[in-house]
Amino acid sequence: MASTFTDRLTVNICQKKSPLLVGLDPRWEQLPDVFRKTADSDNPADRAAAYREFCREVIDVVAPLVPAVKPQAAFFEQLGPAGMAALANIIQYAAEKDLVVIADGKRGDIGSTAVAYAEAYLGREQSIWGADALTVNPYLGDDSLAPFAKVAEDRHAGIFVLVKTSNPGGKTFQDLDTGGGPLYMRVAELVDRLASQSVGHCGYGCVGAVVGATYPEELVDLRDTMPHTWFLVPGFGAQGGDASDVAGAFDERGLGAVINSSRGIIFAHAREPYAEKFGETEWQQAVESATLEAIQQLSDATPAGRL
Amino acid sequence: MASTFTDRLTVNICQKKSPLLVGLDPRWEQLPDVFRKTADSDNPADRAAAYREFCREVIDVVAPLVPAVKPQAAFFEQLGPAGMAALANIIQYAAEKDLVVIADGKRGDIGSTAVAYAEAYLGREQSIWGADALTVNPYLGDDSLAPFAKVAEDRHAGIFVLVKTSNPGGKTFQDLDTGGGPLYMRVAELVDRLASQSVGHCGYGCVGAVVGATYPEELVDLRDTMPHTWFLVPGFGAQGGDASDVAGAFDERGLGAVINSSRGIIFAHAREPYAEKFGETEWQQAVESATLEAIQQLSDATPAGRL
Repeated sequence: MASTFTDRLTVNICQKKSPLLVGLDPRWEQLPDVFRKTADSDNPADRAAAYREFCREVIDVVAPLVPAVKPQAAFFEQLGPAGMAALANIIQYAAEKDLVVIADGKRGDIGSTAVAYAEAYLGREQSIWGADALTVNPYLGDDSLAPFAKVAEDRHAGIFVLVKTSNPGGKTFQDLDTGGGPLYMRVAELVDRLASQSVGHCGYGCVGAVVGATYPEELVDLRDTMPHTWFLVPGFGAQGGDASDVAGAFDERGLGAVINSSRGIIFAHAREPYAEKFGETEWQQAVESATLEAIQQLSDATPAGRL
Repeated sequence: MASTFTDRLTVNICQKKSPLLVGLDPRWEQLPDVFRKTADSDNPADRAAAYREFCREVIDVVAPLVPAVKPQAAFFEQLGPAGMAALANIIQYAAEKDLVVIADGKRGDIGSTAVAYAEAYLGREQSIWGADALTVNPYLGDDSLAPFAKVAEDRHAGIFVLVKTSNPGGKTFQDLDTGGGPLYMRVAELVDRLASQSVGHCGYGCVGAVVGATYPEELVDLRDTMPHTWFLVPGFGAQGGDASDVAGAFDERGLGAVINSSRGIIFAHAREPYAEKFGETEWQQAVESATLEAIQQLSDATPAGRL
């Protein structure tokens, strides 16, 4: 575990020949029937157990195919302490399967409180949650990001800072002109400066950026502005971006970005063509087919095909 | 529980005749010896139990004196699932003691993920964490705040959106000129618009703002810009602001703001004049004295004296 976070991510991506990141966003109403029928839906512990088993089975399916997974903390937090125990369980399980694990918590705070969040999540062996990376919100400024960057570097872990998000309302503040460029460009500049301080063999630092797939042109501009920064790109699939939209996130080697798909993969059993082909009882085959399809789309339409 | 969040906060403030908010930020190294000596410091469950017992005893001391408490999620998350169970425990305990409970999680996400966070934390009876309010980060924009505001209004709960934070680095992005004013003013305008949609008898809505005590002049400007918005003011005490600095946060009735002090109160046993007077074995008396002193300072130097 001596190599940097992005070097380890690079190794996994090259092994799997894909930059696809599978988002683990369990939602009760969308779980395959088999996980709901034996659970009392009013009992958070029952729901948490269902989330845990569902995510572990998703991990079993995708671990041979993709380099990384991204559990979404919110859905586990919604189930209280039992949900948080399930989150810890699936982070550990994914790590055992040699997946890079990015905890999607969008945490952020100041000083020693930022350190507490960073120490809580960052580092497979060193932290109690055991994630390889954490998503972080930049609104609190440079002295709120520095502690996350330091703990990440010290532990060979990573952070992904929100820069340009994929939701329509992302423009409310992120696109405001701050004199010579939008706010997100100012965030991008700071993030790349932090990233440049911990560049590994792969050419990227331990500080990454979240950049939505729904803005293909901005993605190209940001790739230019942030040469040391690995991108986490949400918005591919269910949120509307297609594979060609994310092409600009990669460098010429097909590295420098992971592309997230959540619902489009983990709940593939509920959408066509998988619903008709497999149905709910064969939901794992639906997940596998949707994963392979997303990998193929990315390979065909982006520099990831060079991997 | 039919009245709005800010109406209930107002009732508590008028009963206690103080706007002082006690921050529950347990830190292992600063806990009184009695909580550490029987615990294995390498065991997260032991530490979590110590945090739980310490915070419950702090709550016992401050509940007759102050209207509200603010547990800081980060320190509990640092202890993993056991820490999160302790957090849930102390939120419930504070609520039983008729304290308004503001969970300081600085959460933020988009769409259904924002709804999941809001539903997780907001509402004493309706949510699993059982808080009355949650701190929220605005970087993701208007459609990330709207779900929090809606769940808060529906459940007679509240949110406090980060506007102008107390840390030096808060200026990195928050103070950037966005054409006619800094970014934080744009955030302030949106927050007040949301707040204006749920105004209770007290004149304030369920959407509040976090505004640091370290910027007294900006506090006055923001009070003018945000007539419907209750302020949560950190930075009083250990972070450097004194009571006169926060005067501008209040309306003429002495309402419209809660003023947070964390370390200065809960770890009073370790600072003068309380350390000499009480020492570590009488740490509760130190907490009580520090609380009464902070209440007096706020009463003397701000419109809260009119309560």
